Amino acid sequence: MLVSGRRQLLTALLQAQKWTFQPSRDMRLVQFQAPHLAGPHLGLESENGGGVINLNAFDPTLPKTMTQFLEQGEATLSVAKRALVAQLPVLPRSEVTFLAPVTRPDKVVCVGMNYVDHCKEQNVRVPKEPIIFSKFASSIVGPYDDIILPPESQEVDWEVELAVVIGKKGKHIKATDAMAHVAGFTVAHDVSARDWQMRRNGKQWLLGKTFDTFCPLGPALVTKDSVADPHNLKICCRVNGEVVQSSNTNQMVFKTEELIAWVSQFVTFYPGDIILTGTPPGVGVFRKPPVFLKKGDEVQCEIEELGVIVNKVV
Amino acid sequence: MLVSGRRQLLTALLQAQKWTFQPSRDMRLVQFQAPHLAGPHLGLESENGGGVINLNAFDPTLPKTMTQFLEQGEATLSVAKRALVAQLPVLPRSEVTFLAPVTRPDKVVCVGMNYVDHCKEQNVRVPKEPIIFSKFASSIVGPYDDIILPPESQEVDWEVELAVVIGKKGKHIKATDAMAHVAGFTVAHDVSARDWQMRRNGKQWLLGKTFDTFCPLGPALVTKDSVADPHNLKICCRVNGEVVQSSNTNQMVFKTEELIAWVSQFVTFYPGDIILTGTPPGVGVFRKPPVFLKKGDEVQCEIEELGVIVNKVV
Repeated sequence: MLVSGRRQLLTALLQAQKWTFQPSRDMRLVQFQAPHLAGPHLGLESENGGGVINLNAFDPTLPKTMTQFLEQGEATLSVAKRALVAQLPVLPRSEVTFLAPVTRPDKVVCVGMNYVDHCKEQNVRVPKEPIIFSKFASSIVGPYDDIILPPESQEVDWEVELAVVIGKKGKHIKATDAMAHVAGFTVAHDVSARDWQMRRNGKQWLLGKTFDTFCPLGPALVTKDSVADPHNLKICCRVNGEVVQSSNTNQMVFKTEELIAWVSQFVTFYPGDIILTGTPPGVGVFRKPPVFLKKGDEVQCEIEELGVIVNKVV
Repeated sequence: MLVSGRRQLLTALLQAQKWTFQPSRDMRLVQFQAPHLAGPHLGLESENGGGVINLNAFDPTLPKTMTQFLEQGEATLSVAKRALVAQLPVLPRSEVTFLAPVTRPDKVVCVGMNYVDHCKEQNVRVPKEPIIFSKFASSIVGPYDDIILPPESQEVDWEVELAVVIGKKGKHIKATDAMAHVAGFTVAHDVSARDWQMRRNGKQWLLGKTFDTFCPLGPALVTKDSVADPHNLKICCRVNGEVVQSSNTNQMVFKTEELIAWVSQFVTFYPGDIILTGTPPGVGVFRKPPVFLKKGDEVQCEIEELGVIVNKVV
């Protein structure tokens, strides 16, 4: 609430002196539901871990899904910027259900072996080109939803990842132009069934990566202007409170710009598309002995400035 | 037009005698555009290769996308059934642009090595379990659209495939219940960049399969009631008029029902989801010497009862 208080003070000062308004550095877009509202709504997290401002109440002409919001580009973003500095009611966190900040995107692009130390722990060379696989959008769940342990797998593992959310359509995007296509960042959990990823399905990773509930996302899409440096953020995974992964996004082999340039050689990116940028070391499968998730476990994936998602395994 | 004429005669007879109407056996749903219409519309192909009946003109309350049409289930399907027997104007084929019958589905599921002879031509054993990979929905194009030869690949190959379109949401679907989740069938071309599929990207097939334009579909979603037996259809691919693949869907290792049961162990199927069920022998990469597509080639993929898609390589 300290930051929020400061912002209100700053806004009041700026308005009083008719200074040009500088956008706040923390725009945290969310999709949410509340008992008194019909269906999913768009909102702003008032701060990391704070309550929710209902953007659709502030401007009823705004779309109600993040993908549509992003498709409208600067027009909708400027409404959200105005909402950020207006004195709007904040729904207490306890009264809302957070959905994933993006649902049903055209694609969820994933990057394998993209942290130097994660390559070391599995005794493989750092790749010279990004290794790209995917999850189906149907695997996405909200930041506090349950991960359903499928009876079909005995080796379900954790992977905290920085997720990039695309804001602008593009093909053959140059690395130097790539950030113009990014809406922002969020926290992802790339839940992985190692038996299906590594030994079944002709060694195609897809099935092991795409069980329903295997892609928790959130809590917010933090816009790129609100993140000081996406490639210098502490990234951490805790299982039942114990730190199992702890690194920094500065360890990524291929950064956001290179990944967008690489993948857009093949496909057109659309607003709402998501890129999971790979996981740091500390996954369960490479421990001696290996450790896997079991019913009742609670996994917390946290990235500095972005927030924490908490998913129980059921 | 013979069938159409017969149908009209039959309808007139049925109506005159007040007999219970038996639905026609050829419901061919399409998505199309026309110069005098704003945006994509839903229609009926009057027959295989015939003109188009505008379903949105027949009933303006119908949705304009196939995915939404399928989501509404029996309600919208019964409207289409009424349109099929009404005396409606037919737009000449030359006046419409056919889109893929489904665009932007939640997922495009693909099956590898699913024809016995295709396994033989590449000297691999017939798989004991389906091998599942995917394309991004962004690779889908219409039945007569161009295939863009990407400069990033030197080995672009053809693969005609029977595509299943899901009509009803489901998870853990039993093989015996699977056909209740099928809306119908269409023709797919699983265009494949063999260099990227087989030697690059850590041998994950995704990138080689998912370049933009690598999934021509159509011309129509032929509803399951309109297909005598989806697992006994001649299937054929021609490049510049020369037959390069010629088989029958009775050669599929895993049939529609088994594939739906298998994949729905992992993911929830949604209306509009597509399953490409694998290709018969005759692809270019296993020829001696290998043959690949080049600019100017015309590929025709045809399946009995379903129709033919024609895509030029540019």
